[in-house]
Parts: sequence; structure tokens; C-alpha cells
Amino acid sequence: MQDGNSDHAARVSQVLDELRPRFGNRIQTGLPIRQQHANTLTWLPAPAPDAVVFAETADDVAAVVRACAARKVPVIAFGAGTSLEGHVNAPLGGISLDLSRLNRILAVNASDLDAEVEAGVTRNQLNEHLRDQGLFFPVDPGAGHATLGGMASTRASGTTAVRYGTMRDNVLSLTAVMADGSVVRTARRARKSSAGYDLTRLLVGAEGTLGIITSLTVRLHGQPETIIAAVCPFKTLEGACNTVIEAIQLGLGAARMELVDEVMMHAFAAHAKLPVEEAPTLFVEFHGTPAAAAEQVALFRDIAAGQGMLRFEQAEKAEDRTRLWKARHDAYFTVRGLRPGAESFATDVCVPISRLAECVAATKADIKRLGLIAPIVGHAGDGNFHVQPLIDPTDAGEMARIAEFLERLTARALAMDGTCTGEHGIGMGKIKYMAAEHGPGVAVMRAIKRALDPDNILNPGKILPAG
Amino acid sequence: MQDGNSDHAARVSQVLDELRPRFGNRIQTGLPIRQQHANTLTWLPAPAPDAVVFAETADDVAAVVRACAARKVPVIAFGAGTSLEGHVNAPLGGISLDLSRLNRILAVNASDLDAEVEAGVTRNQLNEHLRDQGLFFPVDPGAGHATLGGMASTRASGTTAVRYGTMRDNVLSLTAVMADGSVVRTARRARKSSAGYDLTRLLVGAEGTLGIITSLTVRLHGQPETIIAAVCPFKTLEGACNTVIEAIQLGLGAARMELVDEVMMHAFAAHAKLPVEEAPTLFVEFHGTPAAAAEQVALFRDIAAGQGMLRFEQAEKAEDRTRLWKARHDAYFTVRGLRPGAESFATDVCVPISRLAECVAATKADIKRLGLIAPIVGHAGDGNFHVQPLIDPTDAGEMARIAEFLERLTARALAMDGTCTGEHGIGMGKIKYMAAEHGPGVAVMRAIKRALDPDNILNPGKILPAG
Repeated sequence: MQDGNSDHAARVSQVLDELRPRFGNRIQTGLPIRQQHANTLTWLPAPAPDAVVFAETADDVAAVVRACAARKVPVIAFGAGTSLEGHVNAPLGGISLDLSRLNRILAVNASDLDAEVEAGVTRNQLNEHLRDQGLFFPVDPGAGHATLGGMASTRASGTTAVRYGTMRDNVLSLTAVMADGSVVRTARRARKSSAGYDLTRLLVGAEGTLGIITSLTVRLHGQPETIIAAVCPFKTLEGACNTVIEAIQLGLGAARMELVDEVMMHAFAAHAKLPVEEAPTLFVEFHGTPAAAAEQVALFRDIAAGQGMLRFEQAEKAEDRTRLWKARHDAYFTVRGLRPGAESFATDVCVPISRLAECVAATKADIKRLGLIAPIVGHAGDGNFHVQPLIDPTDAGEMARIAEFLERLTARALAMDGTCTGEHGIGMGKIKYMAAEHGPGVAVMRAIKRALDPDNILNPGKILPAG
Repeated sequence: MQDGNSDHAARVSQVLDELRPRFGNRIQTGLPIRQQHANTLTWLPAPAPDAVVFAETADDVAAVVRACAARKVPVIAFGAGTSLEGHVNAPLGGISLDLSRLNRILAVNASDLDAEVEAGVTRNQLNEHLRDQGLFFPVDPGAGHATLGGMASTRASGTTAVRYGTMRDNVLSLTAVMADGSVVRTARRARKSSAGYDLTRLLVGAEGTLGIITSLTVRLHGQPETIIAAVCPFKTLEGACNTVIEAIQLGLGAARMELVDEVMMHAFAAHAKLPVEEAPTLFVEFHGTPAAAAEQVALFRDIAAGQGMLRFEQAEKAEDRTRLWKARHDAYFTVRGLRPGAESFATDVCVPISRLAECVAATKADIKRLGLIAPIVGHAGDGNFHVQPLIDPTDAGEMARIAEFLERLTARALAMDGTCTGEHGIGMGKIKYMAAEHGPGVAVMRAIKRALDPDNILNPGKILPAG
């Protein structure tokens, strides 16, 4: 609890005084840098931290946590600032602990298909490092400069999760500094273990509220011999969704199965000048041996043909695949062309895939009824989709409609036994849905938080409702 | 804490008196049934509970937990009693809560490839139920009558984990009664979620010490069109292990890759009269379309040929596959033929697969040096192997050598960045290794246990060292 602003300021000063000999000008208190360390990819208010401290080693992280623990000052882990629900905001002030300089790749164990990396290593950096070894790290949430520590903390996933899993599945072990300053390595490098509570999975998705990740061991995969990308527009949304369901039931094993609605396709056609149909479209990708990939393509086309596929365009060479998928990759930014000058944000829900078509259709009806502009892109193979409203935050009436839309979107997903977020996380933006989704589970989470961080110094005001 | 035997007995009596109107003769206190509910598949001492209560509904489970919580009486969830490290023993007495009658399959959601089952449903029962729908539940720890609740509680895996994952990966959601009697459903039926702490993975592997699982939503898979099983003896253990490593690196995706050492193969040949070589042998299985399975077989044979494969025998029809794999399936019992009249138990460790050959070879050298009879069977694709010593528990000298062997086995696995158990769990048998494996992580686990079960009523004396 804060005892008042002046006391808080005094405690922050004490922490910074204690850290200054070690960190020198790696402590920054200027407003621009503090604001930069509050979340920028969100429409939520973004209160800034009191100071930013740049860690360069795991010991630096432990030093900051111990100093903050002693004075009960909040400490907020910061990676690349690409989270979408206000995860790195500082609603109670405190220290933003910037981990981007913890960017060493510590080991690549090719025989074991794993790598040990510091928390600030980005996924692009890791994949560039691995390229010559024929390996890759599959989790792809979009932002190439997202850090692996941040991705673990938000349980990120993205386009390839349907085949390779999410961060939950691709983190073997973590090293984290806990609220009491102890340093815990959650697991060994073995592929599996039944030795006690799964601390790895407890910290993955905890958004820095239970411990600050300093390094991770992640699973790698061999680069597939063949990659075939394809784009496939459909007569109807249902046809596209049913194609995905059938493909998964048949164990097709597509590496990506992305759904883009006709509004987003219109943005690609009209504003990115891409030669695409303005129809619900699947962007798919197949990995394997040449024969296996070709077999998957043939099977997929068979299924899609029965579901109202309009066209099937495929590409195999890297540059052709990039061109073919350009629309999907640029979606987050292209969408802004639909309403120049507007602001935009992305939200996500996830439902059992049998309910995906129905959920997307009802969501689109709501968008229409409320007069919003909000294209939809989905990781259809997971039942996960994003809505990206284009908004004028100064228009109170519109913002009220947006608020109504979001409430209804989440309620709809929960009513279908889905979740309020498939991959973005709770942060500050979705705390209000936690009780509806988890019921008595919230009390269990709160008990864990209190046990591991009794003074609530680790990223306070995130995930858990107050109380 | 127990306040003394008479007080404990009084509290147990009070619990049973309170439960009798509800449970009637579903409360049993006879010695044979109590002993039956202490673990029988272990060489560990097996203290029996004070009473056995048979639950038939989730409400029954909640009623028992609440009664036990009010009197601070231990309550130990019991499924099929197939665990191997004394998980269901009652070192502090209390109630064994038998969940085997919670055996309803609540829903099969074929489109979503999941099923909701009560905790006492066995994996054989579920797979028989699914057969006609072309679906299956893949996790196969050996015991077909293991319950899914028990398998979740020990984070079980087995032969198919290399392709389909362990219980960690195949449980979507759990419903559990917590120590305070609250009922928590850990997640929705969506394939993924980033909404808060991963309570599902916290309860999976918690061995009933944090909550008692009453039902689970598990992932299903489509039955593969083609299954090809094969048996493949090698000149050397290293050749067999290197074949596995290479296959995994190439993304071969075998559904099973089991290693059996020449001692175990001798048991098959000499005592089960099977026509097998007494050489280190891989039992492998491939799932897929006819073309994909055939391609995997060809690739595997190529790899194995370069690693000293002696022979490759394959089978596709169900009855031929069963015959071919008979040796592997019967291993646990066949092994007893190596030393008639001896007792036997199984232990397991798991190491990064690059260290598997070295770890198995050093373990075999130890077995020889100590004059033990102890065949080895491994889930080679996971780096996980079992040693199954045949022992005379009345021979103190031999038991001392067994104890030395087990200490060295675990120390060796940990030194290779492996774990003291890949799939059997901690129970009582491996508590002594927790500190060496987890260091400060043990304190984190203990804090979670205290927060969620402050009176230590849920399966006390398991997983966590005293203190």
C-alpha cells in the first residue's frame, strides 16, 4: 500500500540512491524515457514509472528487486513494450526495470533442440542466430522485436501456435528473481519432469507479478525442408472456419491457419493495393518434407473445395511466400488506412474452434449494429481472433459504443466456454473480466500472489482485481 | 501438525461421524481395504489410511474435504493405485478418498477434439468410448487402468509423449476441490488462454497436495489413418540413442521411440520365449497418412542404417503390431523372470537427450559394479529411462547397494541437467532429491503449498521436504 505521495517519493529516492553507485547513468528519470516505458501500444491510460533502470546482468536485476523490496517500491519488468493491455504501465509508480540489454544468447544445444537465452533477447535475434544451424524458434506473435522474456511473461503465441504451441509449450525452464530477491531456476533442461510443482508454467503468463524472468531455456525446432504458403479466399466465413475445423480433425498439422475477414481484406485491396479478393480468406502454411508438405496441400484443397473455396494460390520460394503473405504480416498497420487519422488498438478472445464461426459472425453483427470500423484477423486453428477497432478517442459517444462492444465481445466468448484473452494477456485492460472468467480461481491466484509477493512490489495493479 | 495419536484418532472419528449419514457403507475401515489403498507398486513402506471413503460425485469430494478441513484430518486422493513413489500412502493417517467411482464421461466434443471426464475415468475406458468416433487420447503411461485424474496428478507421460506430449500438454482444464472446500475450474475449453496464472499446470503434477481433481477436460487426437510399428535392434546402445537424436532433429515425428537394453531383451528371449535379439533395441511407431508414415519409416531406416542397425521388422495391421510390441508392453512383468521370487520396483530419471547414451551407459556400469540385476527401458525420444531392479528386500547388504545405486543414478541425472523423475513423480520416494534439484525453488513451492493448504491436509508428507 502507498502511504501517500510524499512517502512514496521518499522511498523511490532511497531506492535510487542505493542503486546509483552500481548503475550510474543507467538510472534515468527524464519524462520522455519514463513515458516511453509505459505502454504505447494501447488505448489505455499509461501512467509512467518514477524511474527507469537499465539492467545488464541477472545480478543487476536481483540488486534492483532487493532494493525495491526493502523499501516496498514497485518494480515493473520491461522488455520491448509491445504488449497490448497496459502490462508495463506504472499505476502505483515505481521502477521500470528495462531488460533489453540482457540480450546474450547463452547456449544453443543443437542435439537437444534447445537454447538458453537472456530475457531481453528478441525472437528475431534468436532466429537470425539459429539460421545457419538449420534450427528455428517457432513462436511468432507478430512483433519481431518482442523479447523472449516478455513473450514468456504474457504467454504469447501467434500464427504458428496451431502446430508448434505457445510460450507455455516452448519454454523448458526459466531463471527468475523472486520478490524476496532469491533467484530460482524453475526446471532442468530435460524435456519433461514430474518433480514437484510446475514453476515454469506458473511464471509463464504471470506478467512479471510473481518473479522477474532473467533467462529462459526455449525449445527449438529443425527448419522444415519445405514450406508451402497459400492464400485461399472463401464464399463465406463459415466455409473458412469449417475448413479449419476439418483440417485439424484430420490431423493435417498445418503450421499456420490464419483467418482474415472481408473488412481487413478490403483494407489490403484498397489501401495496400494488393491484388486480393475482398472475401473471408485463409492464409495457411505447411511444413514438412517435400512429399509431406505436398500431401498436406492436396488434402487441404480437398477440404476447402467442399467449403466454398474461391481460389487457391500457393508459393514455396521464400520471396514468393513473403509476397503472398505480405497482407497478413502488415495487417496491424494496414488497417489504419480504413480510417485515416484514427487511433487503433487490438483486442483478442479465444473460443473452442467449433464456436469460432458463430462467435466471429455475432461479433461482426455487433460491429455493424454499433457503427464501428473494426476488422478481424484470427488464429483460426486455435479459435483465437483479434478485433482491431479504429477509434476517435475524443468522441465520447463512439467510445461508449466501443466500451459496449468490448463488454459484449468478452461476454460472448465466455458464454461459449472461451477466454477473455487467448494471447494478449490481462495487464490492466482485462482485469475486469477475471472474476467472470475464473470465479473462485481468482482467490487461488490472489493467495499465490500474496504468498510469493506479500508486499505487492512486482508489477502491482496487473492481472488481479483489487481486494 | 498432529497433536498426538489419541487426538488424531478422535478427529478422524469426528470426521467419519459427520460423513456417515451421507456415505453409509461407502466408508470402510477394515485393514485389508485400507492397506489396498496404500501404494502397492512400490518397495517403500506403505502406511495405511485410517479409513477409505468412496466418492461418487464431485459434491461427495467437496463434502469429504470440508469435513477433513474442519478437523485438520489428512485427505489423500486415490485413483487406481498405480503410482510408483508412494503417492497414496498415508504417513500421517487420515482419509483415503477413493475417486474410482467418479467414472462418467461427461462430454466428447469431437469438433474441438476434447473430452470432459470425471477424475476416475481410466484411459482405457476413455479410449474404448472414443474408438467409434475416430478419436483417441494419446497419453500412455503403461497401466491401462490408470485414472485420468491420477495421471494428471502425477504429470504422467509414457511411450507417446515424444509426439503427443505429457499430461501437462493434454489437459485443457481441471475442476478441483481446494483445501478450503472451494471448487475451482482452472480454465475454459479454449485451446489457449493468457488470462492469469496457469492453475491447470499448477495442479497437474501436484500429486493431490494443492487440490483434489474431480474432473478434467483433455485433448483428443484423430486416429491416424496408418500406424506402422517396428522393432530395430542395434549393435550398440550409442547407435540406438544417436538414431533417436537424429530422428528428432530431422523432425521425423515418430509417435513412439522406446529403448530397451540387452538385459531386458534377454528377459524377453529367455523368459517370455519371444524371438528377439539380446541387443539394445528400439521399438518405434509412426502415425500418419499412408504416404507420410511410409516416408517416416524410410527416413528412420536410413538414419538407423548409419548407426549400426542389425535388423528392421515392421508391422501395420493391429494384431501384427500388438505381436511385434508384445515384449515392450509386457516389460514390467516379464522382467521378473530374470530373478524368480525377487521383488521389483521401477525408478526413472530424465536427461537432455544428448546425454542419454552416456547416462544409460554409466548407469549400466554401476549396475554391473554393484552386482545388481536391473534392466533398463527408456522413452528415448524424451531422454527418459526406467531402471527396474530385482531385489531381495531381506538382504541388507543388497539393499545398501540398491540405495547407493539410486543415489548415484539421481546425482548423475542432475549433473547432466536432468531431473530426478521424468514421469513417476516425487511422492514420498523422491522427496530427498527435491533440494538438490530445485534449490531455492523448494521454498517457492512450499510458500504455494502453505498459501493454498495452510493446515497441510491435502496428501501431507508428499513432494515437499519437511521444514
